Amino acid sequence: MTSVNDSSTRTAATPTRALATFVVGHRAGDLDAAVVREATRSVLNWIGCAVGGCRHDTVERALAALGPFSGPRQATVLGRQDRLDIMLAALMNGTTSHTFDFDDTHLRTVIHPSGPVASAILALAETQPVTGEEFLHAFVLGVEVECRIGNAVYPSHYDVGWHITGTTGVFGAAAAAGRLLKLDEQQMRWALGIAATQSSGLREMFGTMCKPFHPGNAARNGLLSALLARSNFTSSDRAIEAPRGFANVLATGRRYEEITDGLGTTWEILENTYKPFACGIVIHPAIDGSIQLRNEFGLRPEQVSGIDLAVHPLVLELTGKKTPTTGLEGKFSVYHSTAVALIDGAAGEEQYSDARVRDQAVVRLRDTVTAAIDPGLHEDQARIVIRLADGRTLERVVEHAVGSKARPMSDAALEAKFRGLTEGSLSKAETDRLVRLCWTIHTLPDVAALADATVPRAAVGV
Amino acid sequence: MTSVNDSSTRTAATPTRALATFVVGHRAGDLDAAVVREATRSVLNWIGCAVGGCRHDTVERALAALGPFSGPRQATVLGRQDRLDIMLAALMNGTTSHTFDFDDTHLRTVIHPSGPVASAILALAETQPVTGEEFLHAFVLGVEVECRIGNAVYPSHYDVGWHITGTTGVFGAAAAAGRLLKLDEQQMRWALGIAATQSSGLREMFGTMCKPFHPGNAARNGLLSALLARSNFTSSDRAIEAPRGFANVLATGRRYEEITDGLGTTWEILENTYKPFACGIVIHPAIDGSIQLRNEFGLRPEQVSGIDLAVHPLVLELTGKKTPTTGLEGKFSVYHSTAVALIDGAAGEEQYSDARVRDQAVVRLRDTVTAAIDPGLHEDQARIVIRLADGRTLERVVEHAVGSKARPMSDAALEAKFRGLTEGSLSKAETDRLVRLCWTIHTLPDVAALADATVPRAAVGV
Repeated sequence: MTSVNDSSTRTAATPTRALATFVVGHRAGDLDAAVVREATRSVLNWIGCAVGGCRHDTVERALAALGPFSGPRQATVLGRQDRLDIMLAALMNGTTSHTFDFDDTHLRTVIHPSGPVASAILALAETQPVTGEEFLHAFVLGVEVECRIGNAVYPSHYDVGWHITGTTGVFGAAAAAGRLLKLDEQQMRWALGIAATQSSGLREMFGTMCKPFHPGNAARNGLLSALLARSNFTSSDRAIEAPRGFANVLATGRRYEEITDGLGTTWEILENTYKPFACGIVIHPAIDGSIQLRNEFGLRPEQVSGIDLAVHPLVLELTGKKTPTTGLEGKFSVYHSTAVALIDGAAGEEQYSDARVRDQAVVRLRDTVTAAIDPGLHEDQARIVIRLADGRTLERVVEHAVGSKARPMSDAALEAKFRGLTEGSLSKAETDRLVRLCWTIHTLPDVAALADATVPRAAVGV
Repeated sequence: MTSVNDSSTRTAATPTRALATFVVGHRAGDLDAAVVREATRSVLNWIGCAVGGCRHDTVERALAALGPFSGPRQATVLGRQDRLDIMLAALMNGTTSHTFDFDDTHLRTVIHPSGPVASAILALAETQPVTGEEFLHAFVLGVEVECRIGNAVYPSHYDVGWHITGTTGVFGAAAAAGRLLKLDEQQMRWALGIAATQSSGLREMFGTMCKPFHPGNAARNGLLSALLARSNFTSSDRAIEAPRGFANVLATGRRYEEITDGLGTTWEILENTYKPFACGIVIHPAIDGSIQLRNEFGLRPEQVSGIDLAVHPLVLELTGKKTPTTGLEGKFSVYHSTAVALIDGAAGEEQYSDARVRDQAVVRLRDTVTAAIDPGLHEDQARIVIRLADGRTLERVVEHAVGSKARPMSDAALEAKFRGLTEGSLSKAETDRLVRLCWTIHTLPDVAALADATVPRAAVGV
């Protein structure tokens, strides 16, 4: 029998209250260096993705539609000279950072954690002084709220058809923004409640502009939640766990102890991962193996007569497109991905342009790629055999792709990815400066400098 | 066996497409006079509720929170001198119109249809010329979309815990705004898709400021959906019926023929009802009977020694509060409601003020009220026996309360309700003018005049 004084029982019964108390009360100085480091890497990766996506049609159309309705233009659309009110800027930056599906992943829940949270609070930080330390702290707390709520309802919530980055992101954004707005505990519970009642985003939208809209919308509405709560706009005090609250209405199963156990002790940000390649994660082992062999043996495409892959069944189910004709189709082709990776030594956005997918040298090599299912392989494994014109064969078995939890991207690799993403928008000098600011964010006196540094100066006055 | 050419099968399989085609293609001139009349009554009732609620703490707090972030102040907060950008104005007007829970009801689904739709398009009509005829037409189409989607998923959707006014209202607002923005069919499908992926609102929020926030938020986000779609922001073409679309994710049962059958032939606006009394609908028969006897016999409270009610079981379950002490508690008291109705001949917002609930004469009479359950009565029935000090007893059996589908409020009663709601905000002359505009909305050359006429002039320059 459980005593009513048992604290874990009490907190497990009131996850909304537990999260509010935690977010309001936690101290920045109590964060481990490892947590600060991973948060820094997450923010750097997020900014790179946002700047990389900032000229995409998705944001051009959204800007054209909504820009004329902007309020005070206090916040930056990252990578652009456009400025918008903080809620619209949060919407845009959340959207751009997910446009290439190249942002971070909390693997257990498939939440892309940074977009909703960072987009909300960086915009807010352009209207009030926020140090880098305060920013990273609020970011870590927001990610914690978002991912713990995700842990509590995954997988049933995702299986029902919810795009979990949108549905949990709004909580993370509300919590982080609420922290920077210095909400008290009651207000923080309301902020979570106002977030809960806006929680939305359907998986049906995958493949349309509404997919990247989800983290953007979560950022926008999370910010709205925190602002309303600061003015004492009332909501439920138990929006997550009530019979008609979030977890009961939007999921068929739930484990509240995932929200309350170890709160403040374990950190979900430490579970964050970053994609080295701009495509679905199932192809990453094959790409990784191709690049490894290319680099180790200094391979040039004309030396290669064929590539034979053995892969997990999901690879062909999800990315079995033999003859892609557009960049987007290329992302769903293990054949194109392996070929282009062998030629370029990379699989970033550039390798998934329409031009690259139609390039004759790429097409020639792609047509030599075979892929066979090996049910003995797990999802993170692949076997790559490269047949050379001189008769040799090279083989590599990848146990865990780079970017996985087991083989995280190094800081240098993250930085290289960042540079690849920003090079279309920023000069070399601008990128150098932005990278430096990102790595030192924890010591910045005013984090608004980070947003400002994403704006290309070359085009000023154009 | 059904032929693939059977058109009802085809349309039933593609409700999103059917709705988009309908909203884009329907002609204003094809609306029946009865439809136009009911739409006019709905809009009048909506404006009365919005003006009535416009000074409530709910909107004061929302305005304080969000006003500073407003874009171009092109639209009116009904009943106030504040102006906001169209999305924030839509948010405020949807919220104020539901603040007293005194707005209209589509009884079959318990959707409050007008708030989301009218709030979105009246704000929009302040930025572009829209005639009264165009406005009512778009309104009718939006209500049709909203209620048909509601019909398709009710009751399972509501039972799961969704506040259906919020979840379906966003579709209605998107459709109506999209019509005024002259979207083509593809854009209209996208608008419905962008709406679907924002569909939200939990019943847990009942009793908090988030409840009236739901229709406001639906208006705001429906408008956003239409604006994004106009800029070709892409979404799903089958957001309602796809396996991971709205109806599958947010409901456990669905009947798509409710969306497609008779589309353009039958009109959901004709099912709309209006509350004569500012409280839960279960008490309406008792209030109605009290007022009938009061008026027929010219009763004064000092003549009455007691009131004995026989009511449906739900009445005591939902509104059995014997000694309410606040206005809000009074709404959950059949005792207070019956007593105050006998004294005042009304049960509007005024009869549910804190002061009125605590008034000694009201309390004296309330304490003489008894209520007994009669399981033989249906929900819309009540038996009222009034015992007089002179020994007589008066009895009335109400078969259907006024305001029900069977006994709709007359135009005169709607107008009296309207005047009761606006009298705190507008002068008599201002109300007269506004009422006149409402009744003639169908002939207005520019419907923005309606919004403008809700603004109290007396306070200009204050």
